[in-house]
Amino acid sequence: MTLPAPPAGVIPPVCTPLTPDREVDVPSLRRLVDHLLDAAVDALFVLGSTSEVAFLTDRQRRLVTETVVGHVAGRLPVLAGAVDMTTSRVLDHVAAAEAAGADAVVVTAPFYTRTHPAEIARHYRLVAERGALPVIAYDIPVAVHTKLPAGLVLDLAAEGVLAGLKDSSGDLAGFREVVTGARDLPGFGVLTGSELLVDAALALGAHGAVPGLANVDPHGYVRLVRRCRSGDLEGARAEQERLCALFGMVSVGDPARMGGGSAALGAFKTALHLRGVIDCPATAEPQIPLSPEETEGVATFLAGAGLL
Amino acid sequence: MTLPAPPAGVIPPVCTPLTPDREVDVPSLRRLVDHLLDAAVDALFVLGSTSEVAFLTDRQRRLVTETVVGHVAGRLPVLAGAVDMTTSRVLDHVAAAEAAGADAVVVTAPFYTRTHPAEIARHYRLVAERGALPVIAYDIPVAVHTKLPAGLVLDLAAEGVLAGLKDSSGDLAGFREVVTGARDLPGFGVLTGSELLVDAALALGAHGAVPGLANVDPHGYVRLVRRCRSGDLEGARAEQERLCALFGMVSVGDPARMGGGSAALGAFKTALHLRGVIDCPATAEPQIPLSPEETEGVATFLAGAGLL
Amino acid sequence: MTLPAPPAGVIPPVCTPLTPDREVDVPSLRRLVDHLLDAAVDALFVLGSTSEVAFLTDRQRRLVTETVVGHVAGRLPVLAGAVDMTTSRVLDHVAAAEAAGADAVVVTAPFYTRTHPAEIARHYRLVAERGALPVIAYDIPVAVHTKLPAGLVLDLAAEGVLAGLKDSSGDLAGFREVVTGARDLPGFGVLTGSELLVDAALALGAHGAVPGLANVDPHGYVRLVRRCRSGDLEGARAEQERLCALFGMVSVGDPARMGGGSAALGAFKTALHLRGVIDCPATAEPQIPLSPEETEGVATFLAGAGLL
Amino acid sequence: MTLPAPPAGVIPPVCTPLTPDREVDVPSLRRLVDHLLDAAVDALFVLGSTSEVAFLTDRQRRLVTETVVGHVAGRLPVLAGAVDMTTSRVLDHVAAAEAAGADAVVVTAPFYTRTHPAEIARHYRLVAERGALPVIAYDIPVAVHTKLPAGLVLDLAAEGVLAGLKDSSGDLAGFREVVTGARDLPGFGVLTGSELLVDAALALGAHGAVPGLANVDPHGYVRLVRRCRSGDLEGARAEQERLCALFGMVSVGDPARMGGGSAALGAFKTALHLRGVIDCPATAEPQIPLSPEETEGVATFLAGAGLL
Repeated sequence: MTLPAPPAGVIPPVCTPLTPDREVDVPSLRRLVDHLLDAAVDALFVLGSTSEVAFLTDRQRRLVTETVVGHVAGRLPVLAGAVDMTTSRVLDHVAAAEAAGADAVVVTAPFYTRTHPAEIARHYRLVAERGALPVIAYDIPVAVHTKLPAGLVLDLAAEGVLAGLKDSSGDLAGFREVVTGARDLPGFGVLTGSELLVDAALALGAHGAVPGLANVDPHGYVRLVRRCRSGDLEGARAEQERLCALFGMVSVGDPARMGGGSAALGAFKTALHLRGVIDCPATAEPQIPLSPEETEGVATFLAGAGLL
Repeated sequence: MTLPAPPAGVIPPVCTPLTPDREVDVPSLRRLVDHLLDAAVDALFVLGSTSEVAFLTDRQRRLVTETVVGHVAGRLPVLAGAVDMTTSRVLDHVAAAEAAGADAVVVTAPFYTRTHPAEIARHYRLVAERGALPVIAYDIPVAVHTKLPAGLVLDLAAEGVLAGLKDSSGDLAGFREVVTGARDLPGFGVLTGSELLVDAALALGAHGAVPGLANVDPHGYVRLVRRCRSGDLEGARAEQERLCALFGMVSVGDPARMGGGSAALGAFKTALHLRGVIDCPATAEPQIPLSPEETEGVATFLAGAGLL
Repeated sequence: MTLPAPPAGVIPPVCTPLTPDREVDVPSLRRLVDHLLDAAVDALFVLGSTSEVAFLTDRQRRLVTETVVGHVAGRLPVLAGAVDMTTSRVLDHVAAAEAAGADAVVVTAPFYTRTHPAEIARHYRLVAERGALPVIAYDIPVAVHTKLPAGLVLDLAAEGVLAGLKDSSGDLAGFREVVTGARDLPGFGVLTGSELLVDAALALGAHGAVPGLANVDPHGYVRLVRRCRSGDLEGARAEQERLCALFGMVSVGDPARMGGGSAALGAFKTALHLRGVIDCPATAEPQIPLSPEETEGVATFLAGAGLL
Repeated sequence: MTLPAPPAGVIPPVCTPLTPDREVDVPSLRRLVDHLLDAAVDALFVLGSTSEVAFLTDRQRRLVTETVVGHVAGRLPVLAGAVDMTTSRVLDHVAAAEAAGADAVVVTAPFYTRTHPAEIARHYRLVAERGALPVIAYDIPVAVHTKLPAGLVLDLAAEGVLAGLKDSSGDLAGFREVVTGARDLPGFGVLTGSELLVDAALALGAHGAVPGLANVDPHGYVRLVRRCRSGDLEGARAEQERLCALFGMVSVGDPARMGGGSAALGAFKTALHLRGVIDCPATAEPQIPLSPEETEGVATFLAGAGLL
């Protein structure tokens, strides 16, 4: 199917369930897709940071995209991350995403290498020109250590290079500059990657959200976006605050023992396991698993949000 | 052949010559290897940052390793970078390096993902355990945005997980802690990645150097290391200062127009082209090429160092 | 007068007009206060970052506070920054602020020295215990290079150490955590330092705003806050977007020639000069002044916002 | 007395002993000066980072300088830190240092405010022009969050604005660029602030060292510099490695409980207390004191170095 113009609504970045020996757990992945479809989300985003794209081999990446595209069977658009260090490597992933049937690719600035705005612009132009899929820019400075300048995103949008922006920068002021600047670019979708500011992002004009926590509670995010759109701002704020409280689960992992990624992804997968959606909460290596006490902590957050 | 224990001496991180359409230029790569062998370097390191590893596809990476291993034909050890975001992806590169005949792999901390010392240690243990080649840790915070703690490196060295360290951190005090701490670990090699402090690193006990500028002037670095080892400290310092002046070429690229990586790699490849070693100075996309004036600037640096 | 509990509304961080030879321009400062009072702002904040507190000598700081407190004459509360590196030095500024008649002090985390959450907490406890004025925490990582953790702010608020937070961190998600967590602490005021997200901050429950741009257009910010409070969200968004456009003036200074502080403070003071409020647009040394062309650029922004 | 040209040798940054209620302990400070003079150091540096300059009030700063200048009584040059955010505030400290009899001032780049190389250069020019004392640049990015570019330092040295550089940046390659570039500026002194690389810094041409650990073991650093100068490189390296081991004391403080500054300054002062030089190991507020167990740890380091 074709990517809606603009991409909009709730687009969960789909977790990648793993078996205890760290292979892609295909049946669990299908059940997770069903869980998201049941909430009536608007599209799916595979191979993002929440999908542990940085940990999956190329073979596993292909398997994930094929599984989700096959299971969705055209009911929803499927966006696929094409996450790698620079242009040629990204283009290999774009080709794989296209072959697997994805409807768009999501692409970060170059990383590992030192970069420059002129190089970032050239990167996106080459990926859009040589790849066959619409390109959504993925602004994630915590991972790539560069912030996409708002002006650069708007220039590339106006040129037709970019079909949208997924902003995981945490910089809502810069996000607003893109939202405002893109108002006369009708096909361009501006999506927040924040779990915590979906109401605020939509209030200032964003088209949608890509929150990792939507794996755990997709119905909550769909409700939140509906309330925002219908003008029920008090209801939206209450729903958002419930989701903010639930998001506290990302801090149950002991920071003396693991990094923030292990803690957050471990919490999401543990929650999906506790909710009966996936078979095993394992995260990919070298991440550190949650302890039994930390797993209890996740359960407490689920109970507090009425999800257990 | 087997990796010497410890790895030592001058080990250039071999540039990857490209054709104008950004394919690996195999004949130029062979000539570059000959140029390095002519200087009597001690080993070669392919697929490092100076080799533009972040820009090469998996196919190009294999071609580089096979070409260099084949051309060297056992005359020198060949180390290969296995540079990717996390454990499973790195292990795919380790398998490719082994298949192509490399003698060791050089591996960074995880990147893109947020990480933690416990995860870094687990990463190296898994790569060493599951891969078939000796592992050299690659400390390059400018690329991976984490510094390898000296204590962690020494612990992994004592466990037999690591065969050496290539330190591109710029932190000579931390480097000294590893050098001193590794004195009773006889097979462990401590190598500086600095172009500018080889004499200082060797004076405090390092085993060798992996300077990108050794592509341009391998004879200079071999002379420098010999003088350090023979106790000719005045001569060593003079040679080092000559090479420091030559290294100024990395700043000819206009920072308003390109990043530091484009400028440095562009200068090295331009110098190799001007010296007649490689056919084309192209760097991989999306890097920005040097202008004719900037190329002139590189020529001036070469002339100043007596290399043109 | 006493600080309202909670502090709320529009609280401009008052610029410090200087003479051409960089003395405090007292008549211009009084006119600036009148300009702000005319717009019916809710309180004034002297000696903040926008006031060039980092550039003023202790003598000048005292003169500023005395001038503003004297001119305001009890019509509004006056908050004073007590900005210095650590506890004892801050306490000297608190004593000076009290002597000059300020109603509260605004205090950052320690800076210059490396710090730690336990030290930050101890710092605020000592300042509150030994100083005679209510303490508002000033979260400004761009200046002090530490982010105040939301949990720490809430703990200190619950203890009665802090009377409020001025958040210039740019992290609206962390700000929301404080807003939500402080709902049952009725005297505690949560204030955004952002020019660009006042509508969003108030929508999620903030009490007020401390925007530097309110020097230039106080009427605009007062209108914006009134619209937010009256539920006129479309009107609020339109006003906020007008102010966002006006804020573009902070980028007229050439980044090749000056830092972001010189550019932003230079633009605000130039705008105040062009609007006839202050006599001279000079910024303190070693800041770089705007050129005539850059001054023209500021005028264009004022004209675009209907202010010239 | 006048500052030697160039300033050279061992120049300890003198700790500021405090009483239990955090007043300057003048008798202990005099004993510390005697302890340093006994080792035949070359000059003294008061009011540096190791002196807790960031924690001392202006009154305490004056008392420190007057006490040390008075006690030294012309036997050695006394350098004084003039550490504050920007030009006018620094000039107030320069005047105080001059009044108290210091022979030179040590000045950082502006901090708290965002800055730019052009502003840094202007800052040093104004301080040198308006102040009455020679100015030594203090490069300490960990405190001021800007690195002084080598080219800027050399330009200001050539202009006569700067009399020297104290480099606490940890970047020995950049330091080398200044050392090499300043060779034809005979009065300009290049000093390393590192405890761990004094031998390396002198080998590449530095004039001296300003190591905080020289408070604890001034005789060791004087011995080290003498061996470097006499060409006894093996002896120098052995002495340096002994001092590197002793420096491990800065890590006895628990990082879960305190910052790196509390730990390092606490260790130095505890060591001076255990060696009988000062009466009380207290550090200034809000720093966290070492526990009895951590104090034991410092004693173990002293014993290991033969100092207890």
